[in-house]
Amino acid sequence: MAENGKRPIRLGMVGGGTGAFIGYVHRIASRLDGDYQLVAGALSSRAEIARESGKNLGLAEDRIYTDFAEMARAEAAREDGIEAVAIVTPNHMHFAPAKAFLEAGIHVICDKPLTSSIEDARALQKVQPKNGAKFLLTHNYTGYPLIRQARALVESGALGKLRVVQVEYPQDWLAVAPEEDNKQAAWRTDPSKSGAGGAIGDIGTHAYNLARYVTGLKTSAVSADLDAFVPGRQLDDNVHIMLRFEGGAKGMLWASQVAVGCENGLQLRVYGEKAGIEWRQDNPNSMWFTEFGKPKQLLTRGGAIDGSAAGAMGVRIPAGHPEGYLEAFATLYSQFAAIIRGEGAEFEGLLPTLDDGVEGMEFIMAAVKSSKDDSRWTPLG
Amino acid sequence: MAENGKRPIRLGMVGGGTGAFIGYVHRIASRLDGDYQLVAGALSSRAEIARESGKNLGLAEDRIYTDFAEMARAEAAREDGIEAVAIVTPNHMHFAPAKAFLEAGIHVICDKPLTSSIEDARALQKVQPKNGAKFLLTHNYTGYPLIRQARALVESGALGKLRVVQVEYPQDWLAVAPEEDNKQAAWRTDPSKSGAGGAIGDIGTHAYNLARYVTGLKTSAVSADLDAFVPGRQLDDNVHIMLRFEGGAKGMLWASQVAVGCENGLQLRVYGEKAGIEWRQDNPNSMWFTEFGKPKQLLTRGGAIDGSAAGAMGVRIPAGHPEGYLEAFATLYSQFAAIIRGEGAEFEGLLPTLDDGVEGMEFIMAAVKSSKDDSRWTPLG
Amino acid sequence: MAENGKRPIRLGMVGGGTGAFIGYVHRIASRLDGDYQLVAGALSSRAEIARESGKNLGLAEDRIYTDFAEMARAEAAREDGIEAVAIVTPNHMHFAPAKAFLEAGIHVICDKPLTSSIEDARALQKVQPKNGAKFLLTHNYTGYPLIRQARALVESGALGKLRVVQVEYPQDWLAVAPEEDNKQAAWRTDPSKSGAGGAIGDIGTHAYNLARYVTGLKTSAVSADLDAFVPGRQLDDNVHIMLRFEGGAKGMLWASQVAVGCENGLQLRVYGEKAGIEWRQDNPNSMWFTEFGKPKQLLTRGGAIDGSAAGAMGVRIPAGHPEGYLEAFATLYSQFAAIIRGEGAEFEGLLPTLDDGVEGMEFIMAAVKSSKDDSRWTPLG
Amino acid sequence: MAENGKRPIRLGMVGGGTGAFIGYVHRIASRLDGDYQLVAGALSSRAEIARESGKNLGLAEDRIYTDFAEMARAEAAREDGIEAVAIVTPNHMHFAPAKAFLEAGIHVICDKPLTSSIEDARALQKVQPKNGAKFLLTHNYTGYPLIRQARALVESGALGKLRVVQVEYPQDWLAVAPEEDNKQAAWRTDPSKSGAGGAIGDIGTHAYNLARYVTGLKTSAVSADLDAFVPGRQLDDNVHIMLRFEGGAKGMLWASQVAVGCENGLQLRVYGEKAGIEWRQDNPNSMWFTEFGKPKQLLTRGGAIDGSAAGAMGVRIPAGHPEGYLEAFATLYSQFAAIIRGEGAEFEGLLPTLDDGVEGMEFIMAAVKSSKDDSRWTPLG
Repeated sequence: MAENGKRPIRLGMVGGGTGAFIGYVHRIASRLDGDYQLVAGALSSRAEIARESGKNLGLAEDRIYTDFAEMARAEAAREDGIEAVAIVTPNHMHFAPAKAFLEAGIHVICDKPLTSSIEDARALQKVQPKNGAKFLLTHNYTGYPLIRQARALVESGALGKLRVVQVEYPQDWLAVAPEEDNKQAAWRTDPSKSGAGGAIGDIGTHAYNLARYVTGLKTSAVSADLDAFVPGRQLDDNVHIMLRFEGGAKGMLWASQVAVGCENGLQLRVYGEKAGIEWRQDNPNSMWFTEFGKPKQLLTRGGAIDGSAAGAMGVRIPAGHPEGYLEAFATLYSQFAAIIRGEGAEFEGLLPTLDDGVEGMEFIMAAVKSSKDDSRWTPLG
Repeated sequence: MAENGKRPIRLGMVGGGTGAFIGYVHRIASRLDGDYQLVAGALSSRAEIARESGKNLGLAEDRIYTDFAEMARAEAAREDGIEAVAIVTPNHMHFAPAKAFLEAGIHVICDKPLTSSIEDARALQKVQPKNGAKFLLTHNYTGYPLIRQARALVESGALGKLRVVQVEYPQDWLAVAPEEDNKQAAWRTDPSKSGAGGAIGDIGTHAYNLARYVTGLKTSAVSADLDAFVPGRQLDDNVHIMLRFEGGAKGMLWASQVAVGCENGLQLRVYGEKAGIEWRQDNPNSMWFTEFGKPKQLLTRGGAIDGSAAGAMGVRIPAGHPEGYLEAFATLYSQFAAIIRGEGAEFEGLLPTLDDGVEGMEFIMAAVKSSKDDSRWTPLG
Repeated sequence: MAENGKRPIRLGMVGGGTGAFIGYVHRIASRLDGDYQLVAGALSSRAEIARESGKNLGLAEDRIYTDFAEMARAEAAREDGIEAVAIVTPNHMHFAPAKAFLEAGIHVICDKPLTSSIEDARALQKVQPKNGAKFLLTHNYTGYPLIRQARALVESGALGKLRVVQVEYPQDWLAVAPEEDNKQAAWRTDPSKSGAGGAIGDIGTHAYNLARYVTGLKTSAVSADLDAFVPGRQLDDNVHIMLRFEGGAKGMLWASQVAVGCENGLQLRVYGEKAGIEWRQDNPNSMWFTEFGKPKQLLTRGGAIDGSAAGAMGVRIPAGHPEGYLEAFATLYSQFAAIIRGEGAEFEGLLPTLDDGVEGMEFIMAAVKSSKDDSRWTPLG
Repeated sequence: MAENGKRPIRLGMVGGGTGAFIGYVHRIASRLDGDYQLVAGALSSRAEIARESGKNLGLAEDRIYTDFAEMARAEAAREDGIEAVAIVTPNHMHFAPAKAFLEAGIHVICDKPLTSSIEDARALQKVQPKNGAKFLLTHNYTGYPLIRQARALVESGALGKLRVVQVEYPQDWLAVAPEEDNKQAAWRTDPSKSGAGGAIGDIGTHAYNLARYVTGLKTSAVSADLDAFVPGRQLDDNVHIMLRFEGGAKGMLWASQVAVGCENGLQLRVYGEKAGIEWRQDNPNSMWFTEFGKPKQLLTRGGAIDGSAAGAMGVRIPAGHPEGYLEAFATLYSQFAAIIRGEGAEFEGLLPTLDDGVEGMEFIMAAVKSSKDDSRWTPLG
């Protein structure tokens, strides 16, 4: 039961069978605020795993599917059918189910990047959802309260005209080749499943989206230098990008899966004429805010800030009690639930959309193109 | 539905009506891993609020109670009655419901401190639970994965014989008197509801429990100096305690509600003959571990550690994606669920018990006594 | 040559021969701002080492002494004799030379603690310095610019009435017994050289002095629990003290030489009715300052502060370029030089005095007494 | 007198008159270890200021010069003439005095960047120093002990083959235009004095040099995007550069004078196949070192490391007592003194050279060229 007494939204899941990482995360996110109840799933493309995974998650026999299309059809036909679906498959398997469920009038919550090709992304953009079915792209870092506050600070003009944006997302888990043994690694480094981008699609798009989300700046062009350092790897595992934004601001983006010693070091720094902000995921409950000529201030989640926006921020518990990755993820889920119920007007504009997903794909494509073209400045789209 | 496909445990709640903080936390914790479903409640001692709160949480009309005793009786009698109850009332209202539900054969999850008096605590210890009903005391900080790892490190002998324990829990929210306007502050500073201890009961017991949980050291005596700095306040808002442990280790405990600039700065440092550990709640996903003569190592939750104990640790997601307060709380709930289902042998001994609660009360009483007695060394119990 | 064109003050040194740590530090501190020139020394009580050390430091043959009394006499008689002397011997060898040089009209810069006994300390207090010879006690941490700023903040009333003072100085270099091999360890753990206190005299007095320096609070009593954890050690290596100040503020002091993983973790935290400050030596160029209900501010040395007091603060280079231990030490030396030259009125009151040294000894004695007396509250003096 | 009893080297200074920042730093650095004595100076190009500054620093009347050429000639002719000279003028005034003193047989300590033009740099490279006069370029950050250790770790193979180098140097002091009021700002933003580069010459070369110093990697090309954000500013105040190194490693360099909230945020991160290191100037006494699959280790200056190299590292005082910018600077001075005295064989190769200065100029020129050429990859030299 949702905290606000609303009946939980009936949720299905495509992908996320036994051993999957992100499906598990989506399920926790759906449960945390009580807004969803998982009742159906096509949890794997392999029938046996789909069945076993469904059983393990306590789904009713007749709502364990081995095919997402069948699931879309069947659930749309049920009185008690799912109202929303979470798509948590590898990238190349986002497009088809997303299209199927939108056309069946079922709301879609889709992991990022949107698709594995720009063509798929644009095709999805043209799909006509039945009954106004809505779409959420889980760029989950946008759910962090202080990221919301950073965005609000930029919008308020507190930073003045923006000048410099530094964003990075270093990891080290692919510093050696775990592809043979590790399911997570295997599909992410396989172009037929990931698409044209490796690190850039998996984490570079997160970093890019975060910078765009907070700054609101439009990208005019990218100059990229992509590498695959681990011998035999087909997709990039290190991404260096310079960014030019409309209006003259400049940026740098670094994403890496080979930066030994980095776990998930997502970091965003934004500098304007009047102030700067600095935020890191490894301690997401605080953020530096510095006005020129004044001491640095440490803003804390739910701390000494303007409380009027606390709802939009997604703050649950008092400052000093850390919230984390799962809460940020859950905020996307619960605010999308409010929108589904027609009660989420205040959250419109705060959640990542299908259009953001298309831009993410354009970013990947432009970066890959620039890198192949000796880092020539390349516009998006 | 629980992640492991088990049917959720039917949960009731005593306290936690509209505006309550800790009840909300308990509900999130109960939902996060899918192990519980809230189906009944006596959410307030005031009938109207109880009813409205129950409705807001979507409880069935006939399972919204205005009296916990009636609830215990009625639910015990139902085929589909609650299997466990969360007691989230102010301290003086822990004893009676805990006794009632245990005697009704319903498992009890009780917030800390155990009671508001040592007499109540000992009386509760003597209650004979029906049908082996179990008891969980939510000293939630024991659910942090790195606290579990710290305990395992101590147990393994990695620190050698322990010498010094420094624990502290500073806050600042009571630095001025918010008692008039703030429900949370009002009962915590009222001896008739909190008991003999203010800060020492509210956060000092958390700090004490954490030190005991990680070190396993038994306390021989305390020397305390308690203060109420805010004019008119009846209970302590700053706690200075020196600790002596059996075997010769020594400790210091500081708890404060008037330390301006501190949000929830729980910190534990333990030093032995061979190594030391240092952990802070404001970044609970890392912990210092230093062996004598070697560089400090930053252990991270789910990071480069012995994975064999990951289950007991309660790690959900990869290192670098921060988990927080709610996940630690939820780990207590889900591991207690496993114990309720008879599947939690590995968690026995990891969860705070009624006996821990009695010791917490003895700690409060000894500290208050010592402080009144010019800080004379005073044994517990 | 001093930065301000003044002729360097002629300096002598007692102690500080080959292999000594603190003598080396004093020499760097004396040179850093160009205010002193070392021209004479009784660098060791062992004649051979004294001679060799003097030669190594380039002293003229006739100004290398093997006896401090002879040195005081001879230098006082020379036209070009030393104007000041640095006393950097073990504690039990502070009193006699300090007395001798003061009575010879030579300014004294003396390492802490003042002496090895309270009787010596008080006797020194009664010495009549010839020609107004002045005395500096090198509680060097008082030379940190942000410590000066912390003191100024307290004095200005920015914190309001003080309530809680937490100070600590943990180290780990004596966690095992290095006494046999290590000259520094040997005398510090030998009561005949250190006096009645071990850790409390070596680092506890630093912590105590720092708290007193910043807060200005007067101590009414201490309750102490001292331990010698390393087998066979005669003096304390871990110090737990509760403090009561006049006016009602309370404090805790922890000093340890057995806290594995701590290098020189001096930390001071002061909380008042209106604001709190927090400073750590391991990053001495920043300090937290938090006003109640506002975000934490990170004040930086020479950063966005009131520049009017920069001179008294001892800031040399721009914010962001770290200064450290040696600069703080040198600030004491150069401000004492200004006082010697009669140009340091603004520094009067900022430098640790002989009276501070006597109080430090009273603190040691009171703590040792309290600890022997089962931590009974014991007044100083 | 030097700590090792050697006679101090007689030092002159060109530039560094009243109000100058870096001249003051050089003087402290020269004094700190007692290896130099300032005896002559041409401290300003304006005669009156030169005279007054010389007097203020206590120079003898006849050794206060108003012209560096005259100073070189006169001092070379004196029996007691200067043995070394520090050149601390704005960039465009490095070449001529450096040439003059080298040709006069006087050792040169020169601030960076080497010159204001690549032509001057190369011309200086061809100068034939008289009597083997030596040259030190004060890329002072190379004097930090942990930077020395980082370099040793790379050389030892502990990181394996290098892959990624991230270096940055953000400041904010030029975020608004202080050029009118501020002498430091005025010449740095004036192409006739600074040369073709603004931020890139002032701090970008420091960052570049540091990356080169630690990694030993040779640069094959740079792709740069330089901006002048402050209206009216002629030289760059923000520098974005991608780097390609021989052997395939890649890098990013960010230097900025408009990053509001950054003081002197020099940071270097180097990742190899086997391990990574991360160091920041704002806390220069610790450095992360992480081997793949193991916990992060915090190496500390003088801490638990291989002590065999401590001399080369330049460690003065025990771990935990912070050293800073001035000590690092002084280490360059004192190790250069050892070389001048013919006793510094162990330091050969550790100090920045004239060749490093030429490469720094090539780096500036290549970056400026690349930026004008739409960030085309541009080789150095």
